[in-house]
Amino acid sequence: MNKKLNIAIIGQKFMGRAHSNGWKQAQNFFSLNAEPVLKVACGRNETELKKFADRWGWSEISSDWKSVIERDDIDIVDIATPTHLHHEMVIHAAKHGKHIFCEKPFALNLAEAESMLEAVNSSNTVNYLNHNYRRCPAIVLAKKMISEGKLGTIYHLRSTYQQDWLADPNAPMGWQLDSKLSGGGPHIDLGSHCIDLAHLLIGEISSIGCLQAHFVNERKTNDNRTQKVDVDDASIMSVEFTNGAVGSFECTRYASGRKNRNQFEINGSEGSLVFDLEKMNELDYFSNNDNSSEQGFRKIIVTDPSHQYASNWWPPGHIIGYEHTFVHAVADFINAVVGNQTIHPNFQDGVNCMRVLDAANLSAQSGQRVNI
Amino acid sequence: MNKKLNIAIIGQKFMGRAHSNGWKQAQNFFSLNAEPVLKVACGRNETELKKFADRWGWSEISSDWKSVIERDDIDIVDIATPTHLHHEMVIHAAKHGKHIFCEKPFALNLAEAESMLEAVNSSNTVNYLNHNYRRCPAIVLAKKMISEGKLGTIYHLRSTYQQDWLADPNAPMGWQLDSKLSGGGPHIDLGSHCIDLAHLLIGEISSIGCLQAHFVNERKTNDNRTQKVDVDDASIMSVEFTNGAVGSFECTRYASGRKNRNQFEINGSEGSLVFDLEKMNELDYFSNNDNSSEQGFRKIIVTDPSHQYASNWWPPGHIIGYEHTFVHAVADFINAVVGNQTIHPNFQDGVNCMRVLDAANLSAQSGQRVNI
Amino acid sequence: MNKKLNIAIIGQKFMGRAHSNGWKQAQNFFSLNAEPVLKVACGRNETELKKFADRWGWSEISSDWKSVIERDDIDIVDIATPTHLHHEMVIHAAKHGKHIFCEKPFALNLAEAESMLEAVNSSNTVNYLNHNYRRCPAIVLAKKMISEGKLGTIYHLRSTYQQDWLADPNAPMGWQLDSKLSGGGPHIDLGSHCIDLAHLLIGEISSIGCLQAHFVNERKTNDNRTQKVDVDDASIMSVEFTNGAVGSFECTRYASGRKNRNQFEINGSEGSLVFDLEKMNELDYFSNNDNSSEQGFRKIIVTDPSHQYASNWWPPGHIIGYEHTFVHAVADFINAVVGNQTIHPNFQDGVNCMRVLDAANLSAQSGQRVNI
Amino acid sequence: MNKKLNIAIIGQKFMGRAHSNGWKQAQNFFSLNAEPVLKVACGRNETELKKFADRWGWSEISSDWKSVIERDDIDIVDIATPTHLHHEMVIHAAKHGKHIFCEKPFALNLAEAESMLEAVNSSNTVNYLNHNYRRCPAIVLAKKMISEGKLGTIYHLRSTYQQDWLADPNAPMGWQLDSKLSGGGPHIDLGSHCIDLAHLLIGEISSIGCLQAHFVNERKTNDNRTQKVDVDDASIMSVEFTNGAVGSFECTRYASGRKNRNQFEINGSEGSLVFDLEKMNELDYFSNNDNSSEQGFRKIIVTDPSHQYASNWWPPGHIIGYEHTFVHAVADFINAVVGNQTIHPNFQDGVNCMRVLDAANLSAQSGQRVNI
Repeated sequence: MNKKLNIAIIGQKFMGRAHSNGWKQAQNFFSLNAEPVLKVACGRNETELKKFADRWGWSEISSDWKSVIERDDIDIVDIATPTHLHHEMVIHAAKHGKHIFCEKPFALNLAEAESMLEAVNSSNTVNYLNHNYRRCPAIVLAKKMISEGKLGTIYHLRSTYQQDWLADPNAPMGWQLDSKLSGGGPHIDLGSHCIDLAHLLIGEISSIGCLQAHFVNERKTNDNRTQKVDVDDASIMSVEFTNGAVGSFECTRYASGRKNRNQFEINGSEGSLVFDLEKMNELDYFSNNDNSSEQGFRKIIVTDPSHQYASNWWPPGHIIGYEHTFVHAVADFINAVVGNQTIHPNFQDGVNCMRVLDAANLSAQSGQRVNI
Repeated sequence: MNKKLNIAIIGQKFMGRAHSNGWKQAQNFFSLNAEPVLKVACGRNETELKKFADRWGWSEISSDWKSVIERDDIDIVDIATPTHLHHEMVIHAAKHGKHIFCEKPFALNLAEAESMLEAVNSSNTVNYLNHNYRRCPAIVLAKKMISEGKLGTIYHLRSTYQQDWLADPNAPMGWQLDSKLSGGGPHIDLGSHCIDLAHLLIGEISSIGCLQAHFVNERKTNDNRTQKVDVDDASIMSVEFTNGAVGSFECTRYASGRKNRNQFEINGSEGSLVFDLEKMNELDYFSNNDNSSEQGFRKIIVTDPSHQYASNWWPPGHIIGYEHTFVHAVADFINAVVGNQTIHPNFQDGVNCMRVLDAANLSAQSGQRVNI
Repeated sequence: MNKKLNIAIIGQKFMGRAHSNGWKQAQNFFSLNAEPVLKVACGRNETELKKFADRWGWSEISSDWKSVIERDDIDIVDIATPTHLHHEMVIHAAKHGKHIFCEKPFALNLAEAESMLEAVNSSNTVNYLNHNYRRCPAIVLAKKMISEGKLGTIYHLRSTYQQDWLADPNAPMGWQLDSKLSGGGPHIDLGSHCIDLAHLLIGEISSIGCLQAHFVNERKTNDNRTQKVDVDDASIMSVEFTNGAVGSFECTRYASGRKNRNQFEINGSEGSLVFDLEKMNELDYFSNNDNSSEQGFRKIIVTDPSHQYASNWWPPGHIIGYEHTFVHAVADFINAVVGNQTIHPNFQDGVNCMRVLDAANLSAQSGQRVNI
Repeated sequence: MNKKLNIAIIGQKFMGRAHSNGWKQAQNFFSLNAEPVLKVACGRNETELKKFADRWGWSEISSDWKSVIERDDIDIVDIATPTHLHHEMVIHAAKHGKHIFCEKPFALNLAEAESMLEAVNSSNTVNYLNHNYRRCPAIVLAKKMISEGKLGTIYHLRSTYQQDWLADPNAPMGWQLDSKLSGGGPHIDLGSHCIDLAHLLIGEISSIGCLQAHFVNERKTNDNRTQKVDVDDASIMSVEFTNGAVGSFECTRYASGRKNRNQFEINGSEGSLVFDLEKMNELDYFSNNDNSSEQGFRKIIVTDPSHQYASNWWPPGHIIGYEHTFVHAVADFINAVVGNQTIHPNFQDGVNCMRVLDAANLSAQSGQRVNI
């Protein structure tokens, strides 16, 4: 592993930390074809940025992300900023021929997403959109089992992504509740994860209906100003897939007690699967092919050497956590960059996802189902 | 308890057994203000009917339900037949001033339901529609907690009723798949339970969108004829409630491994509740008012003397089963009849439920949300 | 079913109710070779007894159980009294050639148990000891799977029976805490269930070690007298089975939150089973023979027609409750009586069980393991 | 954080990796009062050691751990070797005044343990024994709740540590099955964790009884020689605590389906707690002080900012994994070293633990309970 890849990260908050950890941890647990070098950290608050860079080992800091992107010694641009900044950064990074590791949600809307895809398609670089849950071992297993026909014909996907940080009407205003910055509420923030997994596990969506709820219409900012909430508080979608299956999605930040519950159930003619991110090391599986008197949902603990990524970590029964999905993403991305290979999900997947979310918004406004 | 009430039952299959058991068991475990007397069992297959009556202690049998209803010595008519027969039987029983205990689904459609309600409103009798799950102790507890404000402002109801007896595309045709006999598929069969509980627990529905799926379009009858399936195979609904909450419902017979899973989750500003009929002695409760470091979903085992109906059975931790809900219904019905009191759910509740289901069918056809 | 069997029951409390329900319900749900006739109910409090008999349909009442046992028209004696009365009643019933349905715990000690066994062995009658959990469908399934070799060589049984009604040190004194009436604390009351199931599922026990705890040494009676508690408050046992497996048992009434948790886990070379009475319709099964990446504990809902007793009740997914085990016991007992067949568990099983519990008491006193 | 602490690690297998990860990750997520420097990695297989050091960033490698310990520039010795090597290494490290971070099990037996404790007591250094589960957030919470009296008087601890890698009688021989190298089977390997947690959560043990099982007496080595297994295959212990509580422990490697299940339940007069390492982000809590109709076991997801260590990682609901407990241990150890403070568990705790395990071995041989 003599090859090195220099990384510039933009963003130093929650995702900045999770990505930094990924860049550092990947080489400890995976065989990488190049060494990721934590070169430059970009951000606006210099004091915070200095601390962040020290802690994570970024060699340099900068408040000018544009000029950093332009540097010849930067191979990879990691975009870990709020959604509204993605478009400009992606365009700039693509223009300068950088490989891009971009946090989700991809963009504020479909138009932005399409122009971002166009930009990377003109450059010969690797682009990755960080729907990290695709690299949860339980989800990799789910995909594998469906592909092998373990579930037979798929009838149903039932997916909910619930959080509860807004259940209290007195919870403060934040950038996520301002559509100019976030592009929407849980519909895009959580819904993009749900749709991405639906595309992975079930396939293409042909029609969508959507109902969105607005429970609390204004909130106090931390400096006590009242501000209007102009994003959805919850989104309920029903879809038809081109393969004949139907699906439902429900995303909310108002589900008391559900901290980060990305849960789904898939039913097919041969069996069913159930996943819950709060128990991310488990996958429940029901098989109609078990003996009739011994059928039941099996709680598979996805830590066996036969499970993707698992043997890179610890022995069976020693569970992994949330941030490990980022490490998996980094490992696969580094190797894709070295091999100049396509990786999924990428910006094309991001466009596909935004197309569905935009159509759903349309349906929410009109009350009419929308074909995609 | 010198008073006696003579019952005529119509129907001897699954529901005939469950009702008969209710009539017999109620007096063993509850204080009744009259003794239910199992007088006449009505049905078409006389050989089977004879066995049925012997087993359950019905004094007489008859293949002519109309004349039985007309008998002066019959106080209560118990309608335990397939849906398409309810209308005619209810009209006849109402006309002859009988108290009516009617199995769900109430009717083939809203028009039938409304005429049935009109019929009983003209007679001074007690009418009851057997959405038995309202008398599951866990559901009584859920209702009580919501009424007491334990959940605060309600945001979400998320309800699924899943079975799996059609997941196999080779499963045989049955009367439930013929709309003339059943009025519809899981939309009405399972959906009526979901909507009834939604009315009980959350309140009135103001708008509905619905997507229905058709997975298998023809099936073989037991005598090997191919017959068209003209009912929905699955129904996905999203609703707005007049109180500002939103809800989703999903009903299917294609969910491998889910035998009779009537499951719901309710989220409010102060807490959440979760119920699953396959674990019907349990109610999960999350309270935002617990100490922050000690919050979690509590698995309440609803067998405490403080829980409705529980002390009539066994000590805490000794669970009850499916048929006990029928016993509770019979006990409450008998006492309502003696007191000439309104009981819920009744035919008015049945009309309310059918109105929602009919509107949903309209939405499924048009792709447009429908106001109610 | 022209044959009738006349029953006399002694006892009208918790077990009197559960047995009466069994005698009445069995014929509704099972094919019986004789009709059980609820002839005489015996008890001391005549007012209560009158109510009890009315409610359950016992034709006569009596405060003189001895003379009732002597009546020629009584076929079956059902002993549903506290433990200390069993010996005298069994001896009398055996002497008068009655079939006996006896509640557990069998006897105050091994000596009593052996003389009771001797008594019935001299009469040509059917004797049954009501360890009702043997007829829980999940336990029947567990037995079947072990017999079929699904678990391979058995290594471990881990069994706990927990209740919590004494966790509060101010809970009142009761007859169960007086060794003259009960024969002991949870060691015999709950431990007899555990040992009976161990005998059924694993086999004969060859040695035992026991530690007993005494947490609260005196309690107030309901009339406010302080009385000494002279039974164990908890019992922890470790055993060797003759087949090489080892087992552990823990019985207590001091486990806050555990209402009636009779839980066990069995581990073998090919798989494992887990049962919990509070979820008595479920059996968890792990098979080492599943594909390595798809192994997990399966939650079998034991309501399939292929499961013993299940098809006599309701369709799959419609659960049964605590009292159903008594109905199963009655059905099997009636048919055993008619066929003059041995039924298990019987008094021989009761003696085997008491032998282990007595040896454990010895070990608790001496601190030394005891061979059996 | 200008201060640096140079570390020498001995061992490069499972624990070598887990410790290395701890040394590297601690500074990313915790505020450390010194920077841990990965200086020298010691091991026997130089090829493997080179790879190990490269991967984890150890600056130097050595096959001579003794001389490395003697180096003046080494501050901390991390002993991550099999048990039989601990004694010699600890004595040498203590003699040369090094701070010691030692993997468990502490020693082959009590005599070794006592001499190791004596050695460190003569040096003015910090010693830590890595029972890492003490730093699982759920266990920290359990300790806190017990200390605050949330459980009232403690009656019961019920602890099982189950694995299944020997359930297959054809699984190969390993060093863990050779008592000269390991000191014993699951009794010491898993039992030391159980006893350590019992000491933490409940207190001192006054007497112990123990039954040990031997299921498979010889196994094939990887090079196909038959070798005798001379350690226990399972250990079942019952204990009395000096505070009046009783406890049971069961440790095995023969529990099919249980990969790394360190599970315990604690019952007190006010409530109960349940923990399972396979779901290590959860703690179940039952409180007798909840409203009687709303009592139930709460599943606390221990990822709230109010939970120890949690806010150093991710937002609520984003779970952590097995290796995070090592990171917590390293963070606390580094700060203890800088402050020259006592940390727990340490070698005194290790001696206390070995004393109980040795007494249990004595009981297993004699069949007699042993006072401690």
